[in-house]
Amino acid sequence: MCQLLGMNCATPTDITFSFRGFSQRAGITSDHADGFGIAFFEDKACRLFVDNQSAVESPIAELVRNYPIKSRNVIAHIRKATQGKINLENSHPFSRELWGRQWIFAHNGDLHDYFPALSGRFTPVGNTDSERAFCYLLDQLVKRFGYHEPKLDQVFDLLAEISPGIAEHGTFNFCLSNGQALFSYAITKLHWLVREYPFRPAQLIDIDVEVDFSQVTTREDRVAVITTEPLTQNEEWTAFQPGEMILFQHGAKVRSQVTHVERLERERLDPSLKCITRADQY
Amino acid sequence: MCQLLGMNCATPTDITFSFRGFSQRAGITSDHADGFGIAFFEDKACRLFVDNQSAVESPIAELVRNYPIKSRNVIAHIRKATQGKINLENSHPFSRELWGRQWIFAHNGDLHDYFPALSGRFTPVGNTDSERAFCYLLDQLVKRFGYHEPKLDQVFDLLAEISPGIAEHGTFNFCLSNGQALFSYAITKLHWLVREYPFRPAQLIDIDVEVDFSQVTTREDRVAVITTEPLTQNEEWTAFQPGEMILFQHGAKVRSQVTHVERLERERLDPSLKCITRADQY
Repeated sequence: MCQLLGMNCATPTDITFSFRGFSQRAGITSDHADGFGIAFFEDKACRLFVDNQSAVESPIAELVRNYPIKSRNVIAHIRKATQGKINLENSHPFSRELWGRQWIFAHNGDLHDYFPALSGRFTPVGNTDSERAFCYLLDQLVKRFGYHEPKLDQVFDLLAEISPGIAEHGTFNFCLSNGQALFSYAITKLHWLVREYPFRPAQLIDIDVEVDFSQVTTREDRVAVITTEPLTQNEEWTAFQPGEMILFQHGAKVRSQVTHVERLERERLDPSLKCITRADQY
Repeated sequence: MCQLLGMNCATPTDITFSFRGFSQRAGITSDHADGFGIAFFEDKACRLFVDNQSAVESPIAELVRNYPIKSRNVIAHIRKATQGKINLENSHPFSRELWGRQWIFAHNGDLHDYFPALSGRFTPVGNTDSERAFCYLLDQLVKRFGYHEPKLDQVFDLLAEISPGIAEHGTFNFCLSNGQALFSYAITKLHWLVREYPFRPAQLIDIDVEVDFSQVTTREDRVAVITTEPLTQNEEWTAFQPGEMILFQHGAKVRSQVTHVERLERERLDPSLKCITRADQY
């Protein structure tokens, strides 16, 4: 399917360590080799690198591994295609402008028969279920708040209200950022941790690389990392609860809510239903 | 101010030759060193590389010079800041999605006291006159055509109708593409040429590099190149007439129109007015 990586930080931080491990999964330690993408916010704008080559082979991914772009919000994605061709239009993360900010979205999962009604304000460029879901989320934000930018808490409330409806169609794990904060939602699988003072060494799982963060950080640094599968073997990762939405800001978890997803409840009562949407998700 | 480079091709073509010469102007043969950007379309989607480092020093520009990304529509920009800080938000080209396509815009010039009324549908992320003009153009397209994608000729007609009004505020030379075609408009300075069979050698002006296109092309190739200042010394470049808009498609000039710009008429009658808006444009 695909894997997600998100980072939200108190101070501009480079993601080269985490991306080095994560991108190994694009053909070496896993088979997510059908394109990759990564978006780095700098204030309201962002750099978005996408390629339909794998993150192992792409010269663009090589640049990202070696060029320490510092950012407070980063979202990356490696793809194993299930819906939509392997082309640039279908490469995550997707971006749109709203309220004078770029919004970046990447999805892990598979939504079945998902063709939401869209106003035309945001129209998918490619043909993935993921971009349709992104356009729907933004469409609903405009429907609710018009062209007056709401507070982050209001955005959180609306996302928590409508995401379970999308999750009725299948697996819906995502990272979304507008450069101020990072919203993450998981139905099946997403993990997070916060690195902060006192910092310690961390050892990647996917490649033999260790960084002692106490040597490269200050007391002001704080970094939240969100990822499909834990990236390090000697740090404590917390799994999202099914249906949990978390808001990360300034490198910390500032709010979370476990949403009620009816499909999860049905599956709990009749586990045989799970195979329809939750098998082979990674 | 800044310089523009556009390319529109019959078949996917790489721009490494032209970009090699063009990027020399970001600090070596000229002083356009306050950021650069380049967008490559692949069908409806595009890769957009921007950096607030110069195109000479940026590792991202180095990647672009060495990685032959093939595209039918490319727009590049090197910046010498006049309005807006040197940061990523203000780096051209700018992008927005409309009608399920990415639209890419880069501007050369300086618009004075230009704060058009905008609906909120497209809102500038940065604080340049250029991005305001881009948002205004797209806003007017939606106002005229709603969410039903018009034909390219209809887009051309509207752009030709409203661009002179923007040009009343100063210098307005731009390249705009939706991945199908490239619209170019010039008030002061823009040049173009078409390379087609039989191809010949071309020698860059800004760096000692020559390519014999007859060795690297087929009969089906045809490439239109649009640039602020000619890039080669042994090819014939045609200057845009003041107020001229040209539509390039499949590597050919398919339509052009010289728009009536009242300011240009006033300046013709009283040349002393020119210094207000046309001095020091490059």
